[in-house]
Amino acid sequence: MSNQELDVLRSKVDEMNGQLLQLINERAELVQEIGRIKEKQGVNRYDPVRERSMLNNLLEKNDGPFERSTVEHIFKEIFKAGLELQEDDHRKALLV
Amino acid sequence: MSNQELDVLRSKVDEMNGQLLQLINERAELVQEIGRIKEKQGVNRYDPVRERSMLNNLLEKNDGPFERSTVEHIFKEIFKAGLELQEDDHRKALLV
Repeated sequence: MSNQELDVLRSKVDEMNGQLLQLINERAELVQEIGRIKEKQGVNRYDPVRERSMLNNLLEKNDGPFERSTVEHIFKEIFKAGLELQEDDHRKALLV
Repeated sequence: MSNQELDVLRSKVDEMNGQLLQLINERAELVQEIGRIKEKQGVNRYDPVRERSMLNNLLEKNDGPFERSTVEHIFKEIFKAGLELQEDDHRKALLV
């Protein structure tokens, strides 16, 4: 009984993992596009004010179960990965 | 023109942040439920084989722009946060 329950819950988690992956990559594509526009404008890609504002929005919306510090930690990793992607694009652009 | 474009992209990113937050927290609720079942069964919450299998599934599905190593890194942070939530629940259960 409980193992069947576990299997159902696990397959739901698998489904959510897939949705998260898709969203994270879609977000990354947008971030790349933003990077390309900033590149043309000669604007710095890293914008700590914008990052703080995104985090504050998320913390305001958060109603758990993850705590604020966990939400902040996970999203900082996602933001950092996005910035690294922009930096890779920048390096590739320089090599063209 | 380009600033308007940036604003549109940024509001899409904000929307996706919100969706990610919701999914991450829904996933966390499932993980808590799994933790409660395992608690009753007296089974260890941390299951490295299951974690590796989830990561392999994700890496198979990943078609970028994030690289495999980035996907693995972000999801390991999400998994770790879920495990910490289960451990908190366990500690609270012991205090009842």
